[in-house]
Amino acid sequence: MTRSWSAFLRLCFLVIVFAGPAAPVVADDGYRLWLSYRLIEDASVAKKYKATLQTLVIEKDSPTLTLAQKELEQAVAGLLGTKLIAGKTPGPGTLLLGTPKHSPLIAALHLETTLETLGDEGFLITNTSVKGKPGIVIAANTDVGVLYGTFHFIRLLQTQQSLQSLSVVSAPKIKRRILNHWDNLDRTVERGYAGFSLWDWHKLPDYIDPRYSDYARANASVGINGTVLTNVNANAQILTEPYLKKVAVLANLFRPYGIKVYLTARFSAPVEIGGLRTADPLDPDVKNWWKKKIDEIYTYIPDFGGFCIKANSEGQPGPQNYNRTHADGANLFADILAPHEGIVMWRAFVYSNEVAEDRAKQAYTEFKPLDGKFKSNALVQVKNGPIDFQPREPFHPLFGAMPNTPLMVEFQLTQEYLGFATHLVYMAPLFKECLDADTYAKGKGSLVSKVVDGSLDHHNLTAIAGVANIGNDRNWCGHPFAQANWYVYGRLAWDHELSSEALADEWIRMTFSNQPAVIAPIKTMMLASREIVVQYMTPLGLHHIMGYSHHYGPGPWIKDKPRADWTSVYYHQADSLGVGFDRTASGSDALSQYAKEVQDLYSPLAHCPDKYLLWFHHLPWSYKMRSGESLWDALCHAYYNGADSAAWMQRQWNAVEHQVDEEQFQHVKNLLAIQHQEAVWWRNACVLYFQSFSKMPLPVGLEKPEGTLKYYESLEFPFAPGIRPKW
Amino acid sequence: MTRSWSAFLRLCFLVIVFAGPAAPVVADDGYRLWLSYRLIEDASVAKKYKATLQTLVIEKDSPTLTLAQKELEQAVAGLLGTKLIAGKTPGPGTLLLGTPKHSPLIAALHLETTLETLGDEGFLITNTSVKGKPGIVIAANTDVGVLYGTFHFIRLLQTQQSLQSLSVVSAPKIKRRILNHWDNLDRTVERGYAGFSLWDWHKLPDYIDPRYSDYARANASVGINGTVLTNVNANAQILTEPYLKKVAVLANLFRPYGIKVYLTARFSAPVEIGGLRTADPLDPDVKNWWKKKIDEIYTYIPDFGGFCIKANSEGQPGPQNYNRTHADGANLFADILAPHEGIVMWRAFVYSNEVAEDRAKQAYTEFKPLDGKFKSNALVQVKNGPIDFQPREPFHPLFGAMPNTPLMVEFQLTQEYLGFATHLVYMAPLFKECLDADTYAKGKGSLVSKVVDGSLDHHNLTAIAGVANIGNDRNWCGHPFAQANWYVYGRLAWDHELSSEALADEWIRMTFSNQPAVIAPIKTMMLASREIVVQYMTPLGLHHIMGYSHHYGPGPWIKDKPRADWTSVYYHQADSLGVGFDRTASGSDALSQYAKEVQDLYSPLAHCPDKYLLWFHHLPWSYKMRSGESLWDALCHAYYNGADSAAWMQRQWNAVEHQVDEEQFQHVKNLLAIQHQEAVWWRNACVLYFQSFSKMPLPVGLEKPEGTLKYYESLEFPFAPGIRPKW
Repeated sequence: MTRSWSAFLRLCFLVIVFAGPAAPVVADDGYRLWLSYRLIEDASVAKKYKATLQTLVIEKDSPTLTLAQKELEQAVAGLLGTKLIAGKTPGPGTLLLGTPKHSPLIAALHLETTLETLGDEGFLITNTSVKGKPGIVIAANTDVGVLYGTFHFIRLLQTQQSLQSLSVVSAPKIKRRILNHWDNLDRTVERGYAGFSLWDWHKLPDYIDPRYSDYARANASVGINGTVLTNVNANAQILTEPYLKKVAVLANLFRPYGIKVYLTARFSAPVEIGGLRTADPLDPDVKNWWKKKIDEIYTYIPDFGGFCIKANSEGQPGPQNYNRTHADGANLFADILAPHEGIVMWRAFVYSNEVAEDRAKQAYTEFKPLDGKFKSNALVQVKNGPIDFQPREPFHPLFGAMPNTPLMVEFQLTQEYLGFATHLVYMAPLFKECLDADTYAKGKGSLVSKVVDGSLDHHNLTAIAGVANIGNDRNWCGHPFAQANWYVYGRLAWDHELSSEALADEWIRMTFSNQPAVIAPIKTMMLASREIVVQYMTPLGLHHIMGYSHHYGPGPWIKDKPRADWTSVYYHQADSLGVGFDRTASGSDALSQYAKEVQDLYSPLAHCPDKYLLWFHHLPWSYKMRSGESLWDALCHAYYNGADSAAWMQRQWNAVEHQVDEEQFQHVKNLLAIQHQEAVWWRNACVLYFQSFSKMPLPVGLEKPEGTLKYYESLEFPFAPGIRPKW
Repeated sequence: MTRSWSAFLRLCFLVIVFAGPAAPVVADDGYRLWLSYRLIEDASVAKKYKATLQTLVIEKDSPTLTLAQKELEQAVAGLLGTKLIAGKTPGPGTLLLGTPKHSPLIAALHLETTLETLGDEGFLITNTSVKGKPGIVIAANTDVGVLYGTFHFIRLLQTQQSLQSLSVVSAPKIKRRILNHWDNLDRTVERGYAGFSLWDWHKLPDYIDPRYSDYARANASVGINGTVLTNVNANAQILTEPYLKKVAVLANLFRPYGIKVYLTARFSAPVEIGGLRTADPLDPDVKNWWKKKIDEIYTYIPDFGGFCIKANSEGQPGPQNYNRTHADGANLFADILAPHEGIVMWRAFVYSNEVAEDRAKQAYTEFKPLDGKFKSNALVQVKNGPIDFQPREPFHPLFGAMPNTPLMVEFQLTQEYLGFATHLVYMAPLFKECLDADTYAKGKGSLVSKVVDGSLDHHNLTAIAGVANIGNDRNWCGHPFAQANWYVYGRLAWDHELSSEALADEWIRMTFSNQPAVIAPIKTMMLASREIVVQYMTPLGLHHIMGYSHHYGPGPWIKDKPRADWTSVYYHQADSLGVGFDRTASGSDALSQYAKEVQDLYSPLAHCPDKYLLWFHHLPWSYKMRSGESLWDALCHAYYNGADSAAWMQRQWNAVEHQVDEEQFQHVKNLLAIQHQEAVWWRNACVLYFQSFSKMPLPVGLEKPEGTLKYYESLEFPFAPGIRPKW
């Protein structure tokens, strides 16, 4: 992904030709992500592709179409080792790119009826005849649609699909597909585990790191079209002139890739950098200050996307400081952004400092009454679950509960609660579990995905957010497999109906190999990985029992902190009688925030699935599970299975040695060893801790955990990465 | 410098062969440093080398010799595109590597007389006949000597030297050639401008980043044989078991490269992690605690180098907290380290919180009386100048003043006071200016270099320290030319008699090109660069007038800080009458700390060179310079010349476009633009500021500075990189 990328790939080809088809000759450090364009070794496939891909026709010149052309030239050079003849006239094996508006050749194909259904970003790919010769056309209504189609077409090549009878018609189900970077201006990244921020603010705007365009290119390849550059725990400095000039450089760089830039707005900025005495959203001076500031932003960035705002949450200032509502706060920005076609993404992740109410209920309690009170260009950004990105949570009760407000879902790609960047966790199943959940808001089939894509409540403004797992590590994400989560987030944001299995398959093919012997063991491991992590961290609906503050490793013993809901004991409620958080009518009644059908699913023990058992119920240690074993035994078996499965993952990976790049292999092998150690750590610490309440022996056949509870409680990690900075 | 490096280089060769000799085919992102091994395009040179380099003979197997072999194979594959036949029997074109002890072939050459003079690290390279056939031998007394000889030989190839009549005999003049990393355990780097720390402590000891060995290899190639991994503003956590296990992994990795690991010791560690009530160096419990701790360190790292210690300086704890001397503090560690052959490097960078004495005098005042009181394995580490790594300082008065104590010199490679990583400053002339300075301690010729290399006072223990400019930026040092400072630091540590010009020449050849048309303009620019920076920052002996705390940009107006000597006004003493710090007998008399001859050089205005004028003298604005112009005019001309010369550097660089790698070219071009902007910023801010005292007009012909003094004073940089962390 360097400037002379295509030269580089041609060179790989030459070597493989002249050195004979061997293992990849350049060690893969992971920088190229899923766009490594390794030479296709299957001769018959390559032969067909070469015959089909000889001439590239693009009739219009534009920055975006130039990117599409470059990408195709690089892909063909890498995958086939051949050179596309690019021009404006068709030839043998023509690939035709463009829009009917600017391409007479495409206009002549009369694709209107299909194109009409594709909107601004969709595309179609089909076999056709160009000037009487057989060819392939990638058409869209806009240049960026063509770019998306180009990346889709390249994906077909990377995964070695047939180019016969192509009829791809694709448009995104969600309009704004956004990454949230929790990046601070000092380049630390809150909850970041892949080094430090990509944004080298000190050297911007004058030095432009080539990584910036590589980042944009990777996002475009999976359909991500927006990026919030700064931490939701915001610093007002980003809104000052020197920083806006830096942001503008990034925006200019990202624009041809179809990517809009967004920022986080510090609610108290009018006081901190504006010199006002208040930040009251209804104060005319405050409105005026924001009006001027936002107008200024648009002079630097004419297509600025808007703001993502965390207010009155975890110490962030907000409208409630002035006895105003979240809607008052959001609408302040919405009104000013509207004429610029900017939007507000107002986070629902709030919990009161006073209210003792079950934390899982508070967002709903605060936001549900505000349904319908938000301006049309304001969205409410809701985390997938009601607590905070735990390994497993039920879907957030706000989904389906605010029909008159466009809701976006926020997933966390960075592994704050999932072992940082040293645990392999393929997240598609986690994302899908939420998206496919049924809210029953309008009866059966009222899936979270339909709330988010606007189809359930007929919203036009739709969006989705993923907290980025990207840093300045050479391979972007720390763990080679963490790249898959960036990839699937983008792919699911485009089409949430894609399956975890299909996405794993294509990512493996693009990243590692098309060999079935490689794909099979890796895919099995990926698809099982999230369940395995849940088992060794928080089985049976347990949640929020990790280390304090840094969230690294087990910490079920955490108690006596400034807030009860910052402890672990608050969430697991373990005592001599039992364990679990009663959220039924007999407890916090959080279940009452869900539709009747959902309550019937989780409230009766007879129905409640094991995976949510201790999320919704407090049960005796001796409680008899469906399996017939006691809750205590089931808990122990879960932890031991989880740790054993981490060892199984190591065996799965070892099976592909010498069939994938050696550097990548060793990197993953090292990390899987860490994951197994830490799975055992979680198992031992949690089993010993809960045993101090249950007083029950381990189930027969399970070895006693090494070490003492005292030892595990004594471990400290003063320099764990990603800790929230002090300021 | 990846695992499949040699494959990679063979591949570059193939491409150039089959794509025709073109510009480098892979964009150079700077990762490979001066070891890029580009194919030699001069056919006649390549032909001779190929004939001479066919067979590689190494009769002994050892980790270090294996590294030497790999390096040669990679170099030959890259430079010549050919493959060395490695084995134990000579053939045509034999290169013979080893020690007489383990190589009968080398023993047979009877090189004893030369080898006897080379010590543990020296080597010889000479043409010879091996079993009657002409060949080249690289011989040494140790394997690491052979490795150094190998890198030297490769350098001959990279710079296209003749291999006829070789008779290289080389041994290091200084024994311990060390990098100091000011790296914190949270991966921030104090005064670091190349990203963040290389040391990924969180993932160690289990994940070993390939960069660690690439780092060791680069150091070995220039003879650096020690590294202090942690910040002199130390954190005791590094001495705890979990961290020592991490350090041990790095030590094991570095060992075959001849590199020892050192750490910084937090003086108060016995209290902070040992649970003692005191850290008094004479307290038996404290001694015992350190004894146990140091013995523990050696169980993990049998060849641990020792400690670098900053005590009673800038808030760091030290022996004076207990009314003990620096010698008491250093000897505590020296006594315990001695049986392990470890050393103590005790920093002389101290200044009292109370004493109002000229800061430039304080280190001498404190340490001179302690001469002879340090144990034989303790060195005193003295910065090159008496203040703090300014663009220009006279040599430190302690050099020559402590004949009974081994003194090491500490240079700063990271550009704390030299524009961070965005200014091009070639530092060899700065290093040489200090090393070649004459202390007159034992009459004429008592150079600082002879103090440091032990020859003046007959010390066996000798060392030199360079504060590293290395981070996790892809190109290691941020600025492509900052790599040259890492390079020349190592080369000068090995042989301080090498010239700045010769070192620039070889670095340019190894890094960019052997074409005279490329070498000439780059070399001229490099050799002028340090003087240019002095001109636009601190001309005529001005010093310490940079921005407060972050040290970024100009700040001559800095005053009213917690300490007078943390301000700028303290150092420039500008008033309506004049400017400069009087350090003669009529002032602070700091000059009295130097030998009589040095005083005679700098005290009389008639002798004092312009470059030190305001360092030693306070002079009226109208003072008549040798040139005939007034001091004020000379100051203005210096600032304007400096800024103009920064523009000249841009033109020099533009002359090599298309003759060096395009990505490297653009990177440097961007940075030179920043450097010019900031040179103008320095010029404008300083001229406007000093004019507010001199009240004199600009010399005719100089354009009025843009902006107002108020504007420059108002600039703030809350997130400038490298700021010292709070804890």
